[in-house]
Amino acid sequence: MKSYFRPEIDALAGYTPGEQPRMRRLIKLNTNENPYPPSPRALEAMRAVPGEAMRRYPDPAADALCEAIARRFGVARDQVIAGNGSDDILTMVFRAFTDPVRPVAVLEPSYSLYPVLAAMQGAPVIRIPLAGDDFALPDDVLAQAAGANFLAVVRPNAPTGNAFPKPAVRALCAGFDGMVMIDEAYADFADDNCMDLVKEFPNLVVSRTFSKSYSFAGMRLGFAVSSPEVIFGLNKLKDSYNLDAVTQAAGLAAFEDAAYLADTVARIRRDRELLREGLLKLGFQVGKSEANFLFAAPPDGDGEGYFRYLRENAVIVRYFPGPVTGRYVRITVGTPEQNKELLDLTAKRFKKA
Amino acid sequence: MKSYFRPEIDALAGYTPGEQPRMRRLIKLNTNENPYPPSPRALEAMRAVPGEAMRRYPDPAADALCEAIARRFGVARDQVIAGNGSDDILTMVFRAFTDPVRPVAVLEPSYSLYPVLAAMQGAPVIRIPLAGDDFALPDDVLAQAAGANFLAVVRPNAPTGNAFPKPAVRALCAGFDGMVMIDEAYADFADDNCMDLVKEFPNLVVSRTFSKSYSFAGMRLGFAVSSPEVIFGLNKLKDSYNLDAVTQAAGLAAFEDAAYLADTVARIRRDRELLREGLLKLGFQVGKSEANFLFAAPPDGDGEGYFRYLRENAVIVRYFPGPVTGRYVRITVGTPEQNKELLDLTAKRFKKA
Repeated sequence: MKSYFRPEIDALAGYTPGEQPRMRRLIKLNTNENPYPPSPRALEAMRAVPGEAMRRYPDPAADALCEAIARRFGVARDQVIAGNGSDDILTMVFRAFTDPVRPVAVLEPSYSLYPVLAAMQGAPVIRIPLAGDDFALPDDVLAQAAGANFLAVVRPNAPTGNAFPKPAVRALCAGFDGMVMIDEAYADFADDNCMDLVKEFPNLVVSRTFSKSYSFAGMRLGFAVSSPEVIFGLNKLKDSYNLDAVTQAAGLAAFEDAAYLADTVARIRRDRELLREGLLKLGFQVGKSEANFLFAAPPDGDGEGYFRYLRENAVIVRYFPGPVTGRYVRITVGTPEQNKELLDLTAKRFKKA
Repeated sequence: MKSYFRPEIDALAGYTPGEQPRMRRLIKLNTNENPYPPSPRALEAMRAVPGEAMRRYPDPAADALCEAIARRFGVARDQVIAGNGSDDILTMVFRAFTDPVRPVAVLEPSYSLYPVLAAMQGAPVIRIPLAGDDFALPDDVLAQAAGANFLAVVRPNAPTGNAFPKPAVRALCAGFDGMVMIDEAYADFADDNCMDLVKEFPNLVVSRTFSKSYSFAGMRLGFAVSSPEVIFGLNKLKDSYNLDAVTQAAGLAAFEDAAYLADTVARIRRDRELLREGLLKLGFQVGKSEANFLFAAPPDGDGEGYFRYLRENAVIVRYFPGPVTGRYVRITVGTPEQNKELLDLTAKRFKKA
């Protein structure tokens, strides 16, 4: 059959999401899911949704949720947009700001979805390598990104886990002639975040997700905060009813249960440090992480071998092939029991003589 | 602030969805919602979703649901894709097949979202007027659509309600050098549908929604059926996890409750005919509808006046301004009580002397 697809789409390999195995007996530490269930209030809110709310179109703007988000971050209501997962937010942002004459600048390694979203738009991609074994922001990002219309920064970065210094990120917002996106998918696990920079820079959009810190991966909820002008433009690209009634109700309940978030995040941060110490003792190279995962290189530098070993033993982590990332695996912080299982298995393979 | 948006987006007014009033006392017959709640099995399935399924990423391909859909329509699994409402499907399709050198052909009047989706892509729009008071498919659609890469047909058509003759639609699929989409949002209320044409024409994609017939407007679920090549390409554009776990579970339960669908659809079809007869008796011009709404012109030809009159009396219908559509309003078929209220109000205004 003759293809009627746009050539950009025919050329696209597509994005490969992390494996979602159906075997439930596996220890799944590969897609940065939260090991704890969402707030019980979210479940209650979901179960309280009546048939009447299923039958009717949902609030297209998700007002109750967006108002709560705006209050929490001290911005105006018209500075917030909600999405069907932060994937939906990222899709809107790439459609808004990138095309064949509006290149994208991305850091590498970083979220591997960005070049795919750029390719859908036919947008050239400027790839800026992070510096050294600690994956630092290079000094000349602005020079390297010159000519791009859009700069994507993940903070804390994935898959490396480190958070670039906030003053350096601030300098990017101030100096870049284009839109800057800070993807804060993991910010709830970090020591600080960049949400306040939105008040200072109208060319900044900060993206967040409920998937990780709110245990909402299965529910699909994300949001973005920016200047009113940018949110106004993004709304034009939004599917009218992008968020269903159940997600809106459950998401608001989860968001308002701040104590539950604080408790689960504190556990994960604590266990992240314990897991890191355990891996360091076994000779791993593991940088400091401000996310809910660790980027860890085994003593033999064979990330793929370690990934396969764990998989054979029913523990799934994420492996990213490539000359830089191939030395590492990305390990989601699980429950204390899951982390212990991983460390025990790892000790069997790498125990020091 | 300098705008970094693509010029297509800056130029866009955006799509205006039908009003979703917060006043619950209104009789809401303006957005073609189903007057009955979804299958009780869908509610049960929603409430049975455990926290564990909220915490984990959902099945990215919505396999259980898509397999059930494929079985029902006698196509292969790889001929089905599910979306976050048919809006999500339409967005993927427009992104796949339209751009500045790949124009779109649409019929008018039809679904007013299409020109907006085309504008987002920077795609030229060829507008083909429907013929006469019965909004018939003109004989020369293929000639008028020449040069387009994509042809959108709604069957039954919105807002007019009529279903173009299937042989004529089949001829469009056979003769058009590009992708044809048949948007079957309302097909469950019609006498027949075009799903079987997918087996014959690899350049055909049929889109469906759960919003209307399954009472799922608040849940956001749609799907498309096409050739494996087309579904393969559309999957590249799909957000990885576009359908949350609750919608997948509840949607499958609703889909499998065929008896409930048959019962509610039969009621709506019956009440549609009663409502039409009532309006005809009052001197309205109302064509035959195969959808869950009527496109009705009051005796004085003042659609806007009638719309305002109903609104002042707490009944909301949909009014589309314009030289052709402005004579009409679109009335969603409600419960028997709602339809009676509308007819009583209408009789007060247009009772024959």
